[in-house]
Amino acid sequence: MKLLRYGPPGQEKPGLLDADGRIRDLSAHVDDIAGAALLPDGLDRLRAIDPATLPLVEGNPRLGPCVGRVGKMVCIGLNFSDHAAETGMAVPPEPIIFMKATSAIVGPNDLIELPRGSEKTDWEVELAFVIGKTAKYVSEDEAMDHVAGYCIVNDVSERAFQIERQGQWTKGKSCDSFGPTGPWLVTRDEVEDPQKLKMWLEVNGHRYQDGSSATMVYGVRYLVSYLSRFMSLQPGDIISTGTPPGVGMGQKPQVFLKAGDVVELGIEGLGTQRQTVVQG
Amino acid sequence: MKLLRYGPPGQEKPGLLDADGRIRDLSAHVDDIAGAALLPDGLDRLRAIDPATLPLVEGNPRLGPCVGRVGKMVCIGLNFSDHAAETGMAVPPEPIIFMKATSAIVGPNDLIELPRGSEKTDWEVELAFVIGKTAKYVSEDEAMDHVAGYCIVNDVSERAFQIERQGQWTKGKSCDSFGPTGPWLVTRDEVEDPQKLKMWLEVNGHRYQDGSSATMVYGVRYLVSYLSRFMSLQPGDIISTGTPPGVGMGQKPQVFLKAGDVVELGIEGLGTQRQTVVQG
Repeated sequence: MKLLRYGPPGQEKPGLLDADGRIRDLSAHVDDIAGAALLPDGLDRLRAIDPATLPLVEGNPRLGPCVGRVGKMVCIGLNFSDHAAETGMAVPPEPIIFMKATSAIVGPNDLIELPRGSEKTDWEVELAFVIGKTAKYVSEDEAMDHVAGYCIVNDVSERAFQIERQGQWTKGKSCDSFGPTGPWLVTRDEVEDPQKLKMWLEVNGHRYQDGSSATMVYGVRYLVSYLSRFMSLQPGDIISTGTPPGVGMGQKPQVFLKAGDVVELGIEGLGTQRQTVVQG
Repeated sequence: MKLLRYGPPGQEKPGLLDADGRIRDLSAHVDDIAGAALLPDGLDRLRAIDPATLPLVEGNPRLGPCVGRVGKMVCIGLNFSDHAAETGMAVPPEPIIFMKATSAIVGPNDLIELPRGSEKTDWEVELAFVIGKTAKYVSEDEAMDHVAGYCIVNDVSERAFQIERQGQWTKGKSCDSFGPTGPWLVTRDEVEDPQKLKMWLEVNGHRYQDGSSATMVYGVRYLVSYLSRFMSLQPGDIISTGTPPGVGMGQKPQVFLKAGDVVELGIEGLGTQRQTVVQG
């Protein structure tokens, strides 16, 4: 299934993308694509519905973030060996984790807002997974049972805030609009191997990132197990797994986003995002 | 007002501490001490109620975290000059911020759970403030209008996870039970000067921390304004402002928590917390 949320910010309704790429309204069956709806039973109930019986959503509504009421957004740093190289940092001997404020989460095609004083706002196409069952001290063998599905996250990052403004990357990762999420939550059964997905990102039509989740250092299965040793993961938590090479900071000379730029990105099987950059 | 939440974990009801220190039930007036109830209008509505008209809560119920549906918990690092000295780090030229997972938040007297493999779980008594109005690019002059009130947070920290397990402190700050919060949300009008509050913490009756918010480097007013440049703050967000000297890591030799220890802590005017440590 491809689950989604559509409508104005803060008033999104739950929906489903049918086989013809049209949005179907799930409001009669679930209050949101969030929390308990993401439990294995919850997803099974949605799976049992014939999409043809769901109301067709007319027009071209805004898409919201594909998951609602996100409890936390955990991100993995330097998780692609070639991306680590371009930033001048070593591949870490165990995953680096940091948090993005959930207030940064927006829809997949919403505006990216340059924070005031920003000169180094950068992009990062990332494969994210969404928790579907509470995970605490889970083994790698059990790990995938805790994953509801996958989506795209653009882990927008202000590099000066992140790196030059006193420790802890969260400062450059949490600005409003820095977490476009979606378009869809693609359930786990539809992604044969999350470690074999093409990933790309373009700015104004120039392809900067052209990679694959195959070069990820710590894969989804390992990350579920690893993270669950440090904190419990709840249904609706989003874990974004890091970015392949080609970020703006890695260009020679460096390239950063400016107002008017258009960012387009996609991951194989998970759809695409498109954001226009504005001054905040 | 001293607002609180009481009852079993996940089923807390909103309450108020009356002048005699008894819990009064606020369920008929507000669904939770959270979100819109914390807006200036929401607090004014609660203030207009005569506590004597509220049902008295019998017995001695568990207290939950004093704020519900917390969107994010932002913590400030090394924000007391003498604490920075004891950790061997310099006072930062601007605030260091990091996130604690909201899944770590528990009631003020709940158990502290040592994570598996932990050998360096430590304590930190902290003054936290709770946002009462969305803050984005606010000046220091306006800052205090965005604060609903104050509470105690024990910023429990696993030092090996935080410092020795690859960058980004969040890894040692986010374990389940690492954020005892409360007992009460004391509204801003009841705290004359948040920068003049005595703060203390004891383990098994030995006083390790005995400080004051007067030695805080970056105060509440500044932090609201500063943080609002990097992310928007929403009603119910909790910002914990750092700890005075006396953490376990700073002892010679170092002292860390073990199962059976009892941690007690308090801040002038904000009540006390008491946690027993157990193996997770």
